[in-house]
Parts: sequence; C-alpha cells; structure tokens
Amino acid sequence: MSVGAIPDAARADLAAAMAADRRLVEAALRRHLAPAPGFPPRLRRAMAHSLLGGGKRLRPLLLLWAHDALRARGASPRADALTAAAALEMIHTYSLIHDDLPAMDDDDLRRGRPTCHVAFDEATAILAGDGLQALAFGLLAGIPRRGADLVGIVASAAGPAGMVGGQQEDLDAAGRPLTGALVRRIHAGKTARLIGAPLAMGALLAGCGPATVAAADRAGRDLGLAFQAADDLLDVEGATADLGKTAGKDADQDKATWVRLEGVAAARARTARLGRGGTRRLRELLPADPRGERLLALVRLLWERDR
Amino acid sequence: MSVGAIPDAARADLAAAMAADRRLVEAALRRHLAPAPGFPPRLRRAMAHSLLGGGKRLRPLLLLWAHDALRARGASPRADALTAAAALEMIHTYSLIHDDLPAMDDDDLRRGRPTCHVAFDEATAILAGDGLQALAFGLLAGIPRRGADLVGIVASAAGPAGMVGGQQEDLDAAGRPLTGALVRRIHAGKTARLIGAPLAMGALLAGCGPATVAAADRAGRDLGLAFQAADDLLDVEGATADLGKTAGKDADQDKATWVRLEGVAAARARTARLGRGGTRRLRELLPADPRGERLLALVRLLWERDR
Repeated sequence: MSVGAIPDAARADLAAAMAADRRLVEAALRRHLAPAPGFPPRLRRAMAHSLLGGGKRLRPLLLLWAHDALRARGASPRADALTAAAALEMIHTYSLIHDDLPAMDDDDLRRGRPTCHVAFDEATAILAGDGLQALAFGLLAGIPRRGADLVGIVASAAGPAGMVGGQQEDLDAAGRPLTGALVRRIHAGKTARLIGAPLAMGALLAGCGPATVAAADRAGRDLGLAFQAADDLLDVEGATADLGKTAGKDADQDKATWVRLEGVAAARARTARLGRGGTRRLRELLPADPRGERLLALVRLLWERDR
Repeated sequence: MSVGAIPDAARADLAAAMAADRRLVEAALRRHLAPAPGFPPRLRRAMAHSLLGGGKRLRPLLLLWAHDALRARGASPRADALTAAAALEMIHTYSLIHDDLPAMDDDDLRRGRPTCHVAFDEATAILAGDGLQALAFGLLAGIPRRGADLVGIVASAAGPAGMVGGQQEDLDAAGRPLTGALVRRIHAGKTARLIGAPLAMGALLAGCGPATVAAADRAGRDLGLAFQAADDLLDVEGATADLGKTAGKDADQDKATWVRLEGVAAARARTARLGRGGTRRLRELLPADPRGERLLALVRLLWERDR
C-alpha cells in the first residue's frame, strides 16, 4: 500500500503496528471458529477457507484503533474490541462469499484463492455465509454491557437498508441509466456502512457517548465512499495478479462506478475529495496524540492506495 | 390440524386463540418490514413475498404462549414478546428462502406460492434471506433489558452448530449410509433448535431464571424432533395440494428421514414417543392453569397433525 506523504520511519511503524494487530485478529478469528458439538466439519472448513484466507483486515484494524484512540472512562477492555473486530470481519466475509456466488457476481477468485463455492460447492457456500452471519451476531451479543448496542449497529449497517440493500441496488442498476445519485446510493450501502460501523463500534467500546459514536459513523461512511471509489479505480487500472481477484470485472458487468460515470481523472479527484472530507470529520473527534495520528494514517490507506 | 382427544369446545377456543395471536404476529411482521430510507423496494417486496405469504406461525405462537404461561416477576411486556416472535419468524423464513434455492433443495413451491427465487430471481432471494437474518437480529437487540440474551439464544439455535449446521449435515448425508444417529443429528440442527428457541425465549421474556430457560429449550428440542418426524410422515402420505409444497421430495432426494430408515409404522410410533416425552418435560415447567393448558394443547399440534 502507498502511504503518501508519510515519512519513511512512520510508515515502517505503521506497517509494523498493522501487522501486529492483524495477527491478533487472525488468532481471534481462528479461536471463534473452533470445532464445537453439532458444527459439521465440512461447514467449518468452508467458513475457515474464506475467513482465514488472507485479507487486509482493514475493518478490524479500524475498530481496534478507534477504540485505542478514543478510550475514555468506562471503556471496554481491548479483548472485547478484538471480539467485536472478529465479528465484523465475519460479516464482511459472509458478504464476499455470497457476492461471489454464480447467481451474484459469479467470481472464481478472491484474495488470490478459489472462492468458497468453487473450493466447496454452492450449497455449502450459501450455508457458510449464513453461518458466519449468525456466528458474528452471537459473538457481539456476548460482549459484556455493550452487546445489544453492538448488534444494533452491525444489524443496521449490514441489513436491508445497509449493505444488503446496497447489493440489491447494485443488482437492480444493471442495464439502467447510471446517475451520480444512484452510484452514491449503491456505494453508501454496499461499502460505506461497513466502514462507518467499525469506527462507531470502536467509539462505543471506548466509552464514548451517542453523539461521538454517530459522528464516528458519519466520518467512516465518507471514508467508505472514498474507499469504494478507490477500489473501482484500481479495478480499471490494476492487474489481476496484483489484486488477487479478477480485474476488469466491473466494466464487463456494467457496474455502477464513478469511473464509468465520469472517467478516471474526475473519479480520482472525487476519491481524494471524499477521503479528505472523511479524514477531517474523524480528526475532529480524535485526541492529537500518537494513537489518534495512527488511526488517521490508517484511514489514508483506504483511499490513497495502489492495491 | 387435528387436535386429537381435545373436546370440541376447547378445540374451537384453541383455534380462535391461535387465529387472534396469528393476526398480531402478521401485523408485527408487516410493521417491521415498513419502507425505510436505503431499503430498496424490490428487496422489500421479495422479503415480504416470503415473510407475509401465509404460514402457520407456530414458532411465534410457541414464544407468545410460553411467555403468557410462565410470566413471573420482572417479566417483559407482551409487546416485547411479539417483537421477539416476529424476529424468530424472520429467521425461519430466511432459512426457507435459502433452502428452496436451486443449489439447495431446488423447490418451486412453498406455502402454496412460488418460492422467492422463482417469483424474483436467485440473487434477490439470496439477499432477501440475508436481509431477513440481519433484520431479525437487529429487532432482538432492540428489546429492552433482554436483547443481548435473546440474540445469543437465536444465534446459537440458528448458527453453524444449530440450524445451519443441520442443513449442512443434511446436504452431506446425501448418498451416504443412513443411521439413526445421523437422522437425529440432522433433525436436531435443522428443526429442533428452532422449536427449542421460542420456548426458551418465551421463558426468558417471562422473567424465568436460566435453569427454566434451559429446561424449556430442552423440552422444545424434543418436540422439534417429533415435529420433523411428523413432517416427514406427511411428506410421504400427503398430497401436494394439501401441503402447499411439493410432496414426495424427500424420497426423491434420498433425504434423511425416520420413514426411510425404519418405515411408516415405526416412524409413527417414534413420532408419538418423542412428542409425548417433550410434552412431559414442558408440563413440569408450567403452572396447571388455562395458559399452561393452552400451551400444551398447542405443542400437540406439532406432532399430532394431518397437515
């Protein structure tokens, strides 16, 4: 990933901190997928295939680092934030499994590996996604004091007026005239809500009040719009090998992207505008200390990136 | 439905009480599917098609009547039980939508109407199921004081070591030698957990302690095993028109049923045995009053039924 104007030493620190917390997230994911009575081995393998098959773990890192930066009186321990981060990654992964199905985007490759329905079969992939969603909500509900609120945030962000709704709008947009309002609506649901959620969850677990939680969510949504716009630019410009997924699929399928609507140069300018706006909103919530700076450096990676 | 040895007057009362509460459930389901910003109309229509397309609403009734019968100090109001009942029916409906998909059971008919993927399309049906699951957990989480516990019960019952796990075992069983242990495991996950859940949720919302909640769950699981055994008998004996779904599918697909393993007569005896056992367990928890009797009459319908 490119980290823009950040000095070399800070960049190395950032990468090391990301790698360290990514290892914690991997371990938590593995722990929460442990064998259990009544959990069929084939289902578990399918869930593990997609959940533990790499990935940047951006959403978990956003949650953990928002929790670190905003920690106030009454904050939940970091172990709880880690559980919430793992649950959110499960939601993200279930959406990828279902999105890759033949009836949806019909993709064979994800994170450089065969997608779940290719490695197993379609029925198992449907169930693996369903199981990850249930598992995620169960984990969130078990977090002391804040379980119900966390479930509420994620159910709204991932539900029919959030992520699932955005995917439906995306399907329904195929072959229809593209407008800026439609692109924004699709990206808001499909992507931005699940970038707002980790910042809101981190703030909640840090002990912040409802106003700060809502403001963190709003900042995250803007950053999520920038993230999706950057992703669509990469899809046009990137090669399949670098991305670890099939490049050029969006144009093939008439997907709703800013690039398609206004061209590469304008989409690039829009990405930066959205990213700077979200960063500004987030900065207003954060203390001017190393933990705050670290979170701001992380969110730049969402939209200033080359892969 | 047949209600066995119940006198005519009591039978009429039971049917009237079921119809009255079913209307409350329908109204709650409709209310929780109201249009909302970001909720795409086509997705909403697909969710409504399956959720509001009839159905006996047995799980919601079990929950409401367990709550009525067990109500103790500190009980949640009946409105909360109704919300929980609607959420559970959403979980059940999402599982039917996904189960009917071409990659799963490939069924065209459900509750006498075209299945979701036939009436809409496969991608929309996948998303409608996903959206119902998220919506259900969001509703449960919003229930005062007991939201997190309710989410925990449902996530466990519907998750990878519950309903989703049972469906996977069912898939994996195709073409393999059938044993009693396997049939029991499949039925336990696929069906029984989601009959245990409403009794456990009703007990929890009634203000019962953990021991009673767990005992209600156990009684419900036995009744759920009886319910599935009765369903498989109906599938062999029933006609498509009466069932509102395609009859005879189980035998076609080598599904794991007691009928297939041990024949109609033995399966019928087993059904009654399981049903009586579950009823006995449940009776031990209930007060000997009209609300307790009414719940016991309802659970008989799970396994003593002709449709």
